[in-house]
Amino acid sequence: MNIHGTPYRTVWFADDLVRIIDQRLLPWHFQILDLPTTTHVAHAILDMAVRGAGCIGATAAYGMALAAREAASSPDPTAALIAKADELNCRPTAVNLAWALKRQLDHLLPLPPSTWPENALTEANRIADEDAAACAAIGQHGLSLIQDIASRKPSGQPVNILTHCNAGWLAFVDHGSATAPIYAAHAAGIPVHVWVDETRPRNQGARLTAWELAHQNIPHIVIADNTGGHLMQHGLVDLVITGADRVTRSGDVANKIGTYLKALAARDNHLPFYVALPTSTFDWTLTDGLAQIPIEARSSDELIWMDGPDASGTLHRIRLIPETSPTANHAFDVTPSRLITGLITEHGILPANENAIATLQPFAA
Amino acid sequence: MNIHGTPYRTVWFADDLVRIIDQRLLPWHFQILDLPTTTHVAHAILDMAVRGAGCIGATAAYGMALAAREAASSPDPTAALIAKADELNCRPTAVNLAWALKRQLDHLLPLPPSTWPENALTEANRIADEDAAACAAIGQHGLSLIQDIASRKPSGQPVNILTHCNAGWLAFVDHGSATAPIYAAHAAGIPVHVWVDETRPRNQGARLTAWELAHQNIPHIVIADNTGGHLMQHGLVDLVITGADRVTRSGDVANKIGTYLKALAARDNHLPFYVALPTSTFDWTLTDGLAQIPIEARSSDELIWMDGPDASGTLHRIRLIPETSPTANHAFDVTPSRLITGLITEHGILPANENAIATLQPFAA
Repeated sequence: MNIHGTPYRTVWFADDLVRIIDQRLLPWHFQILDLPTTTHVAHAILDMAVRGAGCIGATAAYGMALAAREAASSPDPTAALIAKADELNCRPTAVNLAWALKRQLDHLLPLPPSTWPENALTEANRIADEDAAACAAIGQHGLSLIQDIASRKPSGQPVNILTHCNAGWLAFVDHGSATAPIYAAHAAGIPVHVWVDETRPRNQGARLTAWELAHQNIPHIVIADNTGGHLMQHGLVDLVITGADRVTRSGDVANKIGTYLKALAARDNHLPFYVALPTSTFDWTLTDGLAQIPIEARSSDELIWMDGPDASGTLHRIRLIPETSPTANHAFDVTPSRLITGLITEHGILPANENAIATLQPFAA
Repeated sequence: MNIHGTPYRTVWFADDLVRIIDQRLLPWHFQILDLPTTTHVAHAILDMAVRGAGCIGATAAYGMALAAREAASSPDPTAALIAKADELNCRPTAVNLAWALKRQLDHLLPLPPSTWPENALTEANRIADEDAAACAAIGQHGLSLIQDIASRKPSGQPVNILTHCNAGWLAFVDHGSATAPIYAAHAAGIPVHVWVDETRPRNQGARLTAWELAHQNIPHIVIADNTGGHLMQHGLVDLVITGADRVTRSGDVANKIGTYLKALAARDNHLPFYVALPTSTFDWTLTDGLAQIPIEARSSDELIWMDGPDASGTLHRIRLIPETSPTANHAFDVTPSRLITGLITEHGILPANENAIATLQPFAA
């Protein structure tokens, strides 16, 4: 996507470095971060300088290009490469991370170590290109949903879409999952308006999705996470689209904490609730999201502290919760398949059930 | 309730002044604010130096003691008193505010203006005492619910209660509505643990409820508003209790934005969802909460800006949402009666339906 007229991806490789947009500084500063070693990449993933299922998968894949170079010169290259893949596998919920690392290992380990660096980079570029292409295809499939709704509204009235967290291009390599249909609709001249959940505790909605939409000139309003149900009760939402961090073969969706509450509100108000995801987000080994998907408990500091500029632009980090009270930070929840109208994938839109999802398994080689 | 060993109410009258705990400064500073005129009182209500249904009702009642003195010496005391009551009627959703003002006007207008100041103060004290007594009674009725749950749990395991916003003693004159059963259970030696929604955008949960509970030594954990559904899915919540700003005669509940989402999650997880309120919170004229209760749209500044101390204790006010994105701040939502297990009132616990609620109307003279 374009930032001030220049096209960017969230992660790329140049000058023997992994380069990323540092998402911790957005929306206040747009800054590129250079990652020279596997450990730098792992830290960037863990500290959420990059975040979002597709983006951390691609970043880990590029990290393996550094790992390949580091491991190739070690006394036991195979053990070293496996250990470095393990170091990069540092967040548990999004399946894309483990998926990209396994794909790199499966690709590299049969080859001579001296060829690993070049092969790892080629494979990383392939993973990144596939991610961007999948998101573009999700956009085209999702566009049909938005077109349908627009055709039933009085001409010129915007389609009101609610989204939670950031499943935008910043969460992938490009285009995004939940935002791809919105960008496609906007490009097709369909009026859209997006309700952006701020998405506590890390405010990825307020900080990233809102920033993305503003840069693409898409009308939107940021709201507190508490607001979506009220808007739905009053006819101000036509469609909910979220992303996913991991989806079981039965269609249960792990996504940013709070997604489940919006799905309940959509059902209570008879509104469509769609989840947009590339096929790489399916975990083919799981059938029960609530019981089986590991939910990351992240540092309470994310809830307690918040940074931002004061009225004169100076950044401060302030405490939101008094020291006398303990806190907990559950980062994801699971929305059961029964609450999901459909899944928007790069291969089309399908219902969230095992039979339909099984038709995608051949694409997930 | 006690603060550092000294008993306080949220509002009282002394030295010809209305005195309040300035809730805007909590939990960072505990400070008493003196309000010398009706206009000062109106501003304190509008700017949420006092907030919460019962507390703003009592504050307005005390404000009428100042209004009575100001109006009694005016050329047209009756017109002046009505105008000042109108000035105090400055927030639309909580019914207690209008109710307390009407009660004062009904009481004062038939009397000679020279007697208004003394009579207004007596009536304000009566309103405040009734509010505190009603909350204490709510605590005793709600205690039975918590006792029931505790008796079905392994001995010593705490009853896990989720609450949203602040319906604590700070929201009333004393004791609180949603917190009164919790304080009563704690006093009765029943182990309780409270999940405190931080309650964006103004964080009344993180700032006020957590502060209250910490001062009463009640175990609690502050969570993002997005978290409650996940906790319920995993058996970590036994009971939800919230307050209410206005309840229709049919049992629909207007309360802090986001309450509806928690009620949906409680229903989806077969958990009891109770609303605690004094009878003064009923609006006997309304039968359809969604259609009829006015929802206050408050300044977006509440969403955009947040204040708190940095690591060295210096208070800052920082921006959370970039200037390039518009925002909206809907302050309340309506939870339909069908989602409510019961209403905990000072006269007992009753189902949220018109027939049951009608039995309370004789108390609402």
